[in-house]
Amino acid sequence: MGYPIFDKVEIWKEGDIMHCDSQQKNHKSPPSYKVGCPPRKKFLREFAEAFKETFFPDDPLRPYKDQTRTRKFMLGLQFFFPIFDWGRDYNLQKFRGDLIAGLTIASLCIPQDIGYAKLANLDPQYGLYSSFVPPLIYAIMGSSRDIAIGPVAVVSLLLGSLLQDEVDPINNKEEYLRLAFTATFFAGITQALLGFLRLGFLIDFLSHAAIVGFMAGAAITIGLQQLKGFLGLQRFTKSTDIISVMKSVFGPFPHGWNWPTILIGAIFLFFLLVAKHIGKKNKKLFWLSAIAPLFSVILATLIVFVTHADNHGVQIVKHIKKGINPPSFNQIYFSGKQLGKAVKIGSIAGIIALTEAVAIGRTFAGMKGYQVDGNKEMVALGAMNVVGSMTSCYITTGSFSRSAVNYMSGCQTPVSNLIMSMVVFFTLLLITPLFKYTPNAILSSIIISAVIGLIDYEAAFLIWKVDKFDFIACMGAFLGVVFASVEMGLLIAVLISFAKILLQVTRPRTAILGNLPGTPIYRNIEQYPDGKKVPGALIVRVDSAIYFTNSNYIKERILRWLTDEDEKHKTEDIPRIQYLIVEMSSVTDIDTSGIHALEELFKSLQKREVQLALANPGPVVMEKLQASELMGTIGNDKIFLSVGAAVMACVPKATGDV
Amino acid sequence: MGYPIFDKVEIWKEGDIMHCDSQQKNHKSPPSYKVGCPPRKKFLREFAEAFKETFFPDDPLRPYKDQTRTRKFMLGLQFFFPIFDWGRDYNLQKFRGDLIAGLTIASLCIPQDIGYAKLANLDPQYGLYSSFVPPLIYAIMGSSRDIAIGPVAVVSLLLGSLLQDEVDPINNKEEYLRLAFTATFFAGITQALLGFLRLGFLIDFLSHAAIVGFMAGAAITIGLQQLKGFLGLQRFTKSTDIISVMKSVFGPFPHGWNWPTILIGAIFLFFLLVAKHIGKKNKKLFWLSAIAPLFSVILATLIVFVTHADNHGVQIVKHIKKGINPPSFNQIYFSGKQLGKAVKIGSIAGIIALTEAVAIGRTFAGMKGYQVDGNKEMVALGAMNVVGSMTSCYITTGSFSRSAVNYMSGCQTPVSNLIMSMVVFFTLLLITPLFKYTPNAILSSIIISAVIGLIDYEAAFLIWKVDKFDFIACMGAFLGVVFASVEMGLLIAVLISFAKILLQVTRPRTAILGNLPGTPIYRNIEQYPDGKKVPGALIVRVDSAIYFTNSNYIKERILRWLTDEDEKHKTEDIPRIQYLIVEMSSVTDIDTSGIHALEELFKSLQKREVQLALANPGPVVMEKLQASELMGTIGNDKIFLSVGAAVMACVPKATGDV
Repeated sequence: MGYPIFDKVEIWKEGDIMHCDSQQKNHKSPPSYKVGCPPRKKFLREFAEAFKETFFPDDPLRPYKDQTRTRKFMLGLQFFFPIFDWGRDYNLQKFRGDLIAGLTIASLCIPQDIGYAKLANLDPQYGLYSSFVPPLIYAIMGSSRDIAIGPVAVVSLLLGSLLQDEVDPINNKEEYLRLAFTATFFAGITQALLGFLRLGFLIDFLSHAAIVGFMAGAAITIGLQQLKGFLGLQRFTKSTDIISVMKSVFGPFPHGWNWPTILIGAIFLFFLLVAKHIGKKNKKLFWLSAIAPLFSVILATLIVFVTHADNHGVQIVKHIKKGINPPSFNQIYFSGKQLGKAVKIGSIAGIIALTEAVAIGRTFAGMKGYQVDGNKEMVALGAMNVVGSMTSCYITTGSFSRSAVNYMSGCQTPVSNLIMSMVVFFTLLLITPLFKYTPNAILSSIIISAVIGLIDYEAAFLIWKVDKFDFIACMGAFLGVVFASVEMGLLIAVLISFAKILLQVTRPRTAILGNLPGTPIYRNIEQYPDGKKVPGALIVRVDSAIYFTNSNYIKERILRWLTDEDEKHKTEDIPRIQYLIVEMSSVTDIDTSGIHALEELFKSLQKREVQLALANPGPVVMEKLQASELMGTIGNDKIFLSVGAAVMACVPKATGDV
Repeated sequence: MGYPIFDKVEIWKEGDIMHCDSQQKNHKSPPSYKVGCPPRKKFLREFAEAFKETFFPDDPLRPYKDQTRTRKFMLGLQFFFPIFDWGRDYNLQKFRGDLIAGLTIASLCIPQDIGYAKLANLDPQYGLYSSFVPPLIYAIMGSSRDIAIGPVAVVSLLLGSLLQDEVDPINNKEEYLRLAFTATFFAGITQALLGFLRLGFLIDFLSHAAIVGFMAGAAITIGLQQLKGFLGLQRFTKSTDIISVMKSVFGPFPHGWNWPTILIGAIFLFFLLVAKHIGKKNKKLFWLSAIAPLFSVILATLIVFVTHADNHGVQIVKHIKKGINPPSFNQIYFSGKQLGKAVKIGSIAGIIALTEAVAIGRTFAGMKGYQVDGNKEMVALGAMNVVGSMTSCYITTGSFSRSAVNYMSGCQTPVSNLIMSMVVFFTLLLITPLFKYTPNAILSSIIISAVIGLIDYEAAFLIWKVDKFDFIACMGAFLGVVFASVEMGLLIAVLISFAKILLQVTRPRTAILGNLPGTPIYRNIEQYPDGKKVPGALIVRVDSAIYFTNSNYIKERILRWLTDEDEKHKTEDIPRIQYLIVEMSSVTDIDTSGIHALEELFKSLQKREVQLALANPGPVVMEKLQASELMGTIGNDKIFLSVGAAVMACVPKATGDV
């Protein structure tokens, strides 16, 4: 009973020879397997299955099967408003975690919000507004337990730089603000639509590598923008590329650097970075890094207030409007020439915001071991931005840095967002006037220390090691953002990602197989140098569906290999190739162009007096070979269960020799 | 010596268990194969190889290896001017074939040229000009022996409809003509550049199915346009969609139909179709169909001349300018606002022209068994159009109908194009005045009978049978052309083709494998209903490279299958899944996103207490698993040569049970 399978292997090897025209004599019989050709599915059923796998791969309707109507309604409610799901077993212990996490991210978000609003060329209160309403909506509709909602640096920068190409944010403030709300509205619509139409997979087209590069570039660009506040400059370029910024900083003498500003900024930046470093090294002290920004703001504000540093050229926030979000529904453009621009800007910024939120949601869900439904999440984010656009908020999404803090502080549910929202609410109502003397330099320091985390050089190094093409995409996006503009970096990232897809579909890999001596296994001879070519037969594996994009290439690639072997046959003492065996295991599908290419290959082989044999074609390929009647041309007896069976049938002597 | 391989099979089965952590006791030894991990290639070498396979898969420099300098020069000359290649063994017998073929296609092209020029809204002589110069250039540079060069119906229609969107061809004749030459110039530049930059594979992105639909739609549109000449209408719509045309034809009463015109047209159309039918049925009589058009023109012209039918409303050609092509170099726009339009129009029409020519070249080369180099061919076609644009020609390419006649008449080399060109030369010099009384109706009949061949309903039916998605592309392009416009049909064709590519890369196929009882073979259980799942193990095959576009889908798809099995375990009496074996044979590549997904999969499995094993990863995947250090995480001993080896190692008892 040691290895009972072996007895059966022998039987199989004999039985497998069955459909074969060569001069085999007495074969014994069972068990013989024909290459399976599943019964043809009805067109509509086939279509429905393909449709489901494309748009509903997660089978969202499964829980509804065999349920009562009330239960179905409840499930539906829970689907769209997960709060009814997790809310049912919410308890005090969970609330404790959420409360601490909520307070922590609130302390972090208030100074960040004020700074990020500036990146979007908006007044500081709009940053705070955006941390009040959207988190409320998300708490009801969102399914990630760890994400922290609010304005984020990269999207703020992107929105600001796209908007200022259309409207001047200083001379035309009113129109700029309206355009920002309109863009936010359409960002939300785009996000919700993508989710609703189950097109969430489209955001996968921005590759991980491109995002790493884009984020790092954006972080550097944002950091450079902060030099204005950090150095206390009065004039500063509107461009975001590094060369323009450097000209602004080191431009015509005197540079306009304000030393008291630099002193405040540098001291607090140092403090923030040290706190961050400590928090990273010692997980127990991470609250230090979480609380440091708010602490710095309070301290710096006090210092300026006491020393009257604002009279010595230290720029301060001056004025933040008190009170909560005014309604802004009537400010959204629903017609006119601004509409088109807003739709374009909103959809681009909305998709980038989505990418960030979905990446965060997936990461933390993976760490805690729960599932986040990407499409549902998009609907939640979209709804939150639509409502936000009507309550004076600009585009919000999940923030990398604050979500990490949220997770570390022990958040349990989206209630932490609710807590944060409440803190921001009271801040808007009561505390904003106290920010009057907050120096801009401290905000710049906070933003610089926050975006440094977006530069993931370790990931970039791993990308370099693993995949050079990915590295090109990464560096292309990075350099595009740093040296040209955020839009250009994004465009480069998308183009390189698409180039990779095109390469993949036009130049699939193929390999020549050889036999591993002493086994019936055939493997790529480049990978297994022990692999021996079968004399008289060329065995080729095609590693992709054969579609119009690659059918010609595959056909010509195979013929070229045959020509190579023929030349070897002429110069060296090698038997002429009489059989071409194509291993089709990986050929999952074939379309009409592929069928044509296969037919042409067959005809070319006939001219060269080479026999074609196919090994292990999949179900779809078998079905299409039959439908197109190519099966009859090639011969049903030339289609084998495995390469081994094909070799035994075609060159029985060779198998003896190996 | 019957089946000597069997003894070895046993040895292999034992040896294969080697890297496995499970409780196997005494194993005997050789030959054992590890999963190969080829030595790491230097980055530059790897890049150079990928570059070569992408842009120079045909290895065009191979003949130059180890040759003297003179020989290299000769080979280079022959490469760019194949006339030096085939010209060396040209002889009288070949000339005889070319002469007959050349005269036949000349008799066919003259009436067609006059008609096609009208489709492009140009005067009739421009059609003839375009059959004089471009074939000369092609005869020197082209490598297809069977293609017949000249204006073609579809490209003429496309050019005409794109140009008239920009400039009115009647009121602004001069400018229209200049724009046509400029577009032709840039069509040639586009074609030559695509070939020169080895980007010929880009035309493969128009799928066969889309082209079938587009061509059929264009044929119907062209046929409908001929109703003007056929019915003798004075006013006719400028739009090409079927609804506008029907309104023009059946519009306000009186319709303006001219009965003598219809009589002439109908009789000759009937004659042409009968001749065509006879030629198709009886290959020996095919010359009948080839000569019928010229014969009809002569006869119809005589009839009109004798009966003075032109006084009864039968429209005639009236005037064709006598003399050969005037130079037109100075009419091409190299600056100004027309330049951009011409570049756009030229590149679109140029690519469609290329698609047609390359398809023809490949078809006939396949039939005669010689190779056509696509990229070289594009350079030849581009050069021919650039020279054409300077000698009053508009865009030319290979014609389906005339190339078929060329082939049937026994052409041997591009010399048949030369002969045709000479005939057109003498026609232009001497005979054009004789076309004065040629009725437009006969030209319409000739075009209708020519374009009918472009409606390939058999191909459409085959597409329906083989691939439903292809059929959607086909019908989309067809309906787009017929009901909207040529451009719209083209756009639809391109969009559907791209949608298919995106689907392919985002939703790769995966399958659950089962063991074929009595064999060590594991196959898709949907295709082989005999396949038995291995108790306690889930075996999944992934059929695509794992890239950023599909990595999330693949990860989630596998986890969902695992969830399904877990549910079955709860409800039915099935052992819990403890091992997930991923068959990686078809995973040719993995990028950083794929590595991440695999890592996340591994972590999720750890949480579920399921062990991950990989079977037969390819060389690139092995290399990247090592580079990313994921190999260490998964464990080198969890990577197996085959599914069989993995099953034996993980669930040794199960293999006994099967």
